[in-house]
Amino acid sequence: MCAQLLPTQPYKGTRDFYPDEMRLRNWFFGKIRSVLETSAFEEYNGPMLESLELYAAKSGEEIATKQTYNFIDRGNRMLAIRPEMTPTVARMVAGKMNELSFPLRWFSIPNMYRYEATQRGRLREFWQLNVDIFGCDTYEADLEVIISAIQIMKSFGADESMFTVRINNRRFFNDVIAAIANTDTETTRLISKVIDRKNKVPRDAYEKDLFALGLSEDQIRRIDDLYCMSVTDATAICPESTGAQELRALFEALEKLNLSKYCLFDFGIIRGLDYYTGTVFEVFDNAPENNRAMFGGGRYDNLVGLFVKNAKVSGVGYGMGDVTLENFLVTHGLVPESFGSAVKVLVTKFDDVPFEHYLALANRLREAGVTASVYLGSKKFGKQIEHAVKGEYSHVLIMGGSELETGTVKIKDLNTREETTVAAAELEAFFGSNK
Amino acid sequence: MCAQLLPTQPYKGTRDFYPDEMRLRNWFFGKIRSVLETSAFEEYNGPMLESLELYAAKSGEEIATKQTYNFIDRGNRMLAIRPEMTPTVARMVAGKMNELSFPLRWFSIPNMYRYEATQRGRLREFWQLNVDIFGCDTYEADLEVIISAIQIMKSFGADESMFTVRINNRRFFNDVIAAIANTDTETTRLISKVIDRKNKVPRDAYEKDLFALGLSEDQIRRIDDLYCMSVTDATAICPESTGAQELRALFEALEKLNLSKYCLFDFGIIRGLDYYTGTVFEVFDNAPENNRAMFGGGRYDNLVGLFVKNAKVSGVGYGMGDVTLENFLVTHGLVPESFGSAVKVLVTKFDDVPFEHYLALANRLREAGVTASVYLGSKKFGKQIEHAVKGEYSHVLIMGGSELETGTVKIKDLNTREETTVAAAELEAFFGSNK
Repeated sequence: MCAQLLPTQPYKGTRDFYPDEMRLRNWFFGKIRSVLETSAFEEYNGPMLESLELYAAKSGEEIATKQTYNFIDRGNRMLAIRPEMTPTVARMVAGKMNELSFPLRWFSIPNMYRYEATQRGRLREFWQLNVDIFGCDTYEADLEVIISAIQIMKSFGADESMFTVRINNRRFFNDVIAAIANTDTETTRLISKVIDRKNKVPRDAYEKDLFALGLSEDQIRRIDDLYCMSVTDATAICPESTGAQELRALFEALEKLNLSKYCLFDFGIIRGLDYYTGTVFEVFDNAPENNRAMFGGGRYDNLVGLFVKNAKVSGVGYGMGDVTLENFLVTHGLVPESFGSAVKVLVTKFDDVPFEHYLALANRLREAGVTASVYLGSKKFGKQIEHAVKGEYSHVLIMGGSELETGTVKIKDLNTREETTVAAAELEAFFGSNK
Repeated sequence: MCAQLLPTQPYKGTRDFYPDEMRLRNWFFGKIRSVLETSAFEEYNGPMLESLELYAAKSGEEIATKQTYNFIDRGNRMLAIRPEMTPTVARMVAGKMNELSFPLRWFSIPNMYRYEATQRGRLREFWQLNVDIFGCDTYEADLEVIISAIQIMKSFGADESMFTVRINNRRFFNDVIAAIANTDTETTRLISKVIDRKNKVPRDAYEKDLFALGLSEDQIRRIDDLYCMSVTDATAICPESTGAQELRALFEALEKLNLSKYCLFDFGIIRGLDYYTGTVFEVFDNAPENNRAMFGGGRYDNLVGLFVKNAKVSGVGYGMGDVTLENFLVTHGLVPESFGSAVKVLVTKFDDVPFEHYLALANRLREAGVTASVYLGSKKFGKQIEHAVKGEYSHVLIMGGSELETGTVKIKDLNTREETTVAAAELEAFFGSNK
């Protein structure tokens, strides 16, 4: 009787998508689906819950334990709500290794959870586009994946003034560091961690960390130089490196395809995770107020080997979150004013005409492919018009007793305010339906 | 080095959607979206995690504690993975009570989890279409909701031989039981529970339960009679009942709209949950091997009152799971053989022609709206054709050194096996693009 009221806020870091927000999300993911399908990528999906060990094995301990929502089910299984899609897709590829026809061109748009402090662009629940090509070892797949990202951005009307794809290569990185500083593999790996943090720490601290790893002042200066070099000059330092050759081939192809205006060689792109092995890239928002990486990815070899003995299936791909994408589209004015269908008809009603007469009109329009509904309830005509305007209807139909007698309907265009009377039988024709 | 391999199976009761399965799901949910949008329903969505108390308040203890995945987060909040959508949508409606323009016509297709023994048609993770109208108290909203269910089924090519909408009314149920047995509200509620279980227990047990609630043999026989009655005869028992009037109005409108062939009055439709207050319905599969309720719903008054003091927003709606729908479509042969675009082009490649020439061809086709990709890798021509056939490509493009010199491309139709040579510049025109 006097139970306490429940709060209406969604859980911290999650969002309610009311129809307005949902239309926006459906619009941009719809465009992305269409671009990817035209490039012969195929959509897949997997479960929201996975075994926790899947993340420990691939993403490293931090993501697995600190950043996931994890719990034990009643069958004593350690589960996690997926914080990312890559382990799931690697598991799926492994599960049908012998049936699938490689190379695979796959994408997915799953919802996922990360346990983190919420801030602008970072929420606990988000949707993430994942695009991957599995089973092609050459730079050609890297190129296709990067092109798909450019095509997606272009499909929203974004141009080279708005975004830049910054590209590096982990193999090249390792080789060039070794060439400059004569380091072993492990030291090179530790240096990559320092360089990855470069923009987040003071210069002093950065240099101190590199000195500690045995680098000289001259070597640090030579690394600095790499940031300003063209891909040609940078790769000339270690021309025999496979990574250098991949980088050159990639940039040459981008040039010939007239896509190099969107792309930049950037020695500072590392991508923290250890599993990247070749091309790495990040797509930056060029807006001064938001100049940072929106999303990125790269080549990771053989995650499938976690599941299948002696399997060697390489992959290359990226993940793009809905929150950062939406910020980008809003910042650059790329969201259209309206997404709905141009024609949307509300059949208004009077209490003295049986309801099914109105519903029959709406059903006829629906069958002709015209979006239509009947006002539900018994509010006055003015309130019904108000409802139509708020609901972004383009037209209202009016059929009172007198129209019913003469077999006509009044159609009011809510934009022009024009009113037309048509024979009820001509209704579909009025809305230009050719069914 | 010798780490143990991870299993490739998904978590119990969940599914991996490989591209084939995903295409099927996208196909049927795409059709549903289109039907609902044409009827001016708007899509919404909400978070996967909700406060556990939301389910305890609405769905009753059993769903809240036994059937949900629930856990405590690091902020000591009791959370549940949503087992159903209605509490979320009631919370959302309550959250914007004063901004929304009622009546609302809303739908959503969320994924959700229930902790249960898995069996045919019942999994732990599933997707569920939810359709609801909020803010209209009359049978008119019930009718619109039922019609949307019929339209969805019809859009798949299902006809009246394949499914039946079985309809009852909880208000009528209460009134007719009171009229027959002169029971009070609580006894009527207990009788409804017995009748809800009728088909799951032996006749003896059913009668024993009703005797225990004070019913006589004659009263039980009169209840039995209701199962065979037309809606006209049944409602004549308590003509003054609001529920009886709603039922009559609903069936009369269905008759006039030529939809009564899909519908049947069925006194046995109760729907277990206590929160239903008026019209209730279930859509049955008529196939003899699968003759059971696929999905259902009804009118539930004032769930919004759990959140907002003195709020009175009634709702009517239903939920339809992807698993049962897919079973239905497969059983009745309503799944098309192929969903993809008719034209899908694989650009094959030779190692002596630079990759970007091939990619440029694919990009031109993509920009003309034709689905196209380049074979990635360096397998022999025969293997590339095999890949095209497995991937359901309709055409392959062939451009070797000699074609490159003469500015031509060979196009092979994989269905007719016909081969055509066209000028490279005529490529888009060949595929009938008018861009």
